[in-house]
Order: sequence, then structure tokens, then C-alpha cells
Amino acid sequence: MNLKNNERIDDLGINDLKIIQNTEYFCFGTDSVLLSNFITSNSSKNIILDLCSGGGVIPIIISAKYKYSKIFAVELQDEMFDLLVRNVELNNLKDKISILQGNIIDFNSIRQNIIKETGSGNVNIITINPPYKPKGNGIGNEHNVKYIARHEEMCNLEDIFLTSSKLLEYKGKLYLVHKPERIVDLLAIARKYDLEAKRIRYVYPRVDTKPSIVLIEYIKGGGNETLMLPPLIEYNEDGSYTDEIYKIYGMEKKNEE
Amino acid sequence: MNLKNNERIDDLGINDLKIIQNTEYFCFGTDSVLLSNFITSNSSKNIILDLCSGGGVIPIIISAKYKYSKIFAVELQDEMFDLLVRNVELNNLKDKISILQGNIIDFNSIRQNIIKETGSGNVNIITINPPYKPKGNGIGNEHNVKYIARHEEMCNLEDIFLTSSKLLEYKGKLYLVHKPERIVDLLAIARKYDLEAKRIRYVYPRVDTKPSIVLIEYIKGGGNETLMLPPLIEYNEDGSYTDEIYKIYGMEKKNEE
Repeated sequence: MNLKNNERIDDLGINDLKIIQNTEYFCFGTDSVLLSNFITSNSSKNIILDLCSGGGVIPIIISAKYKYSKIFAVELQDEMFDLLVRNVELNNLKDKISILQGNIIDFNSIRQNIIKETGSGNVNIITINPPYKPKGNGIGNEHNVKYIARHEEMCNLEDIFLTSSKLLEYKGKLYLVHKPERIVDLLAIARKYDLEAKRIRYVYPRVDTKPSIVLIEYIKGGGNETLMLPPLIEYNEDGSYTDEIYKIYGMEKKNEE
Repeated sequence: MNLKNNERIDDLGINDLKIIQNTEYFCFGTDSVLLSNFITSNSSKNIILDLCSGGGVIPIIISAKYKYSKIFAVELQDEMFDLLVRNVELNNLKDKISILQGNIIDFNSIRQNIIKETGSGNVNIITINPPYKPKGNGIGNEHNVKYIARHEEMCNLEDIFLTSSKLLEYKGKLYLVHKPERIVDLLAIARKYDLEAKRIRYVYPRVDTKPSIVLIEYIKGGGNETLMLPPLIEYNEDGSYTDEIYKIYGMEKKNEE
């Protein structure tokens, strides 16, 4: 496969999956990997929808875990959509992952596409690693693709929860990763759309630092008690990865006695 | 001072403060001490209100830190109110701590009492360690005083946030400790009453356990970004207290080389 300017192929470390990234745009990070790992489902056969897919790292990772699931990936921007198309091809996942170009607020159009391919409009699982930065914050005159991928320009929390609530089946699950600073919005706005946070995990770079990200599982129509999980600590005091991070990344831990 | 049946005097470990507790009722725990320690204020001169005071552990602890503040303590139940009265006397704090018997939903009556004593109805800080268990849950035929002190029978989250919002000045602070399982209610219901969670800290018994309690600072009229603090871990792997817990409790750490 030919690469374009500023592109490179990264190994995802799972089942030989690979991903083309453009270093000028938004590249995937720990948050997407941790979110993919946070998903729980008793069924390997689901209809899964990933919103704001970017280059497709989340649908590609979860395609390995949920082998018999049908996955849909939605991305708005031309440049990222082009990467998404080629990443699905690169991994021979065209049968499992259907890609749609569009804005997440067009939930009717997304639903029509899902019905056309599956015969059902009931989505079991939605995943999203959305842009974190509030609209208008930060330096706006950066490369536009990168700016939109990072800011809530085209994809704010109201849009995310509205569309997720419209598309999920009753008791369907939404998995989201975001900045801990937004926790009140993340819980209160979701509740307005009948999405109740049921499992929450904070990720702390070290045991003595503020959390860097929060992972949230919402259930549509869920009751008002939340399971708070133990902290996920990324690094030990000596700067090495913790055992849990090694496990999530499927890495061999080097034992140095 | 004469003690009644089932009563004992505990040392608070701060400035020689002591507290009478009745082992048949609700006794204070780590949560009250951690909440008292969680308060921040640039002024030592505040009007502070503690709701659901029980035996008064929170107002008694904070009286030592905020020496020039006027503190009000509200308790509903006769048996706990009796303990509160005697605890304030025991520590010679009658000048600093005014005690009121009543239900927290009677915010007008609380306000009138505060105005009568201070000339101002503007409360700067409210603290509360409320009953954690939802109404109707658990064994209801326990000793009634203990049941009410532990369940949301007379003091639910709607009442807490309504009264706090009515009594706090603009930008005044509410400090609350609760179960992490209730986090969505704790953030979403508060927002309805213009109380925005601005600082949150989870307390984990150990680094690999779920959090046992959450400490929240709300600001009336605060904006929608929250400072998430590092985890507060209580115990090391070997079962000893962590350095931070030693510091909060003002204990000497035993150095065993």
C-alpha cells in the first residue's frame, strides 16, 4: 500500500492489526486503546457503532475482540475518512466494518444505513473518543483537520448523547472517554437523554497525579447507581508501566531480577 | 462530665478536642475527618453551617482550623442533638458553635437563626456528611436513631442541595462526603440547584480497590469545569497507613528501619 505525505504505518500490537496515521493530523493514543479495552459484552454478536472514528483505531481493535459483530464507523472529515477507508482495507476488515461519512447529528441517516445492512436499527454498543477541547478554546488557526479532530466544533456532548440515545436499543451501552474536568457535563447531560453512567474508571498517570482521562459506560434506561472501579494507574514510581497497562497492551513484561 | 449508658469519650487527635459518642447510635468515622480536611478557604473568618451534624464532629474539628469563624450546627434527632449540646460544652466551644435543632428542609428557620446571631444571612461554607443509604433500603427495624442517621429518611439529596443553594452566598461553597455509587445524582441534582462540583477527590482503601467515599466541593454559581484530584489512598500494601493519612490525622509516623 502506498503512503501519502506525512503518513506512517503503526502496529497496534493486537492480532497483527496495523493502522496508517498522518502525523499532521490527529494520531491515536492511549485513550482509544483503553476505551476499547473497557467494553464489556456477554455477546460476541453485536451491532456496534463507533462515532467520530478518525483513522478507525477503535473499530479496528474491537473487530478482533467481537469477531461476529457488525461494526459501523462514522467520520465526517474528508482527510480522516480517507485514512479510515484505507485502514479498513489494510486490515482486510471490509466485511466486518462498514464506514459512513457524515455528521453524527444526522442520526436518521446513520440509522438508515444500519437498517439497510443489518435489517435492524437496534444498536447494542456505541463507542466514541470525541474531541476534548471546548469549541473556540486553544489556537484555532492550526491545520483545520487537526483542529476539528481535537475541538468540540462538529461534535459536542449534547450531539453525542442525543444521537447515542436515539440509536441505542433499550439497555444498550455507550462507551466514552473524555477529560475528567468535564465530569459534571458528562454525567448530567447524559442523564437528560436517558443515558445513565453505570461504570466509571479514572486513569491516573501515576498514583500521586490527577487523573488524565475518565472512561465511562452508560446504559440507556439504566438505574441511578454507578459502579466506581479501582484507579487505573499507568506508570510505577520508577517510570515503568504498571502490570495492568502491560496486560491491556498485550506486552510481555520484562522481568529484570 | 457524667456519661450516659453506652457512651464513651473519644479523643479527636486535634488540639485536645474530644467527643462523646454513643455506641448504640451512629459514631463518627474517617469520612467526617477527611471532609473536614478537604475544606479550603482563604478567610479564617467565615459563617459556616454544618447540616445533619450528629454528635458534632465536623463543626468541632473545623472550629480549630477556622478560629475566627462563626459555626452553626443543625441536628434533627433528640438523642443526637443531646450529644451535640454536650460535645460543644465539653470542648468549651459555646461561643464559636451555635446549635440548632430542626429539619434541614426548614431553610427559612435556619436562615432566621443565622441572621439573629450574625446580622447576615450569607453563609460562606456549608458542610454535610449525610446519611448514605437510600430510604427504605436495609434493615428498617434497627434502633430508630441509628436508622435515621444512616438512611436518607429525613435528609435526601434534593433537600440537601435545595437548602444549601438557598443559604449559601453567591460563590459560597458546599462540602459533602458520600458514596461513589451515587455520583450521577451527586453531580446532576446539585447542578439543578446551581451548585456545580468544582473539586472532587475519591478515597480508595487501597490502590487496587474501588473507592469507598467521594469528597466533593461545590460552588454556587460555579462554571462547568471540575478539578479532579489525585486519588487518596488510605492503606499501603502492607496494611499500614499511607503518608497522607498520617498527615491528615496529625499522627506521628513510626519509622522502623
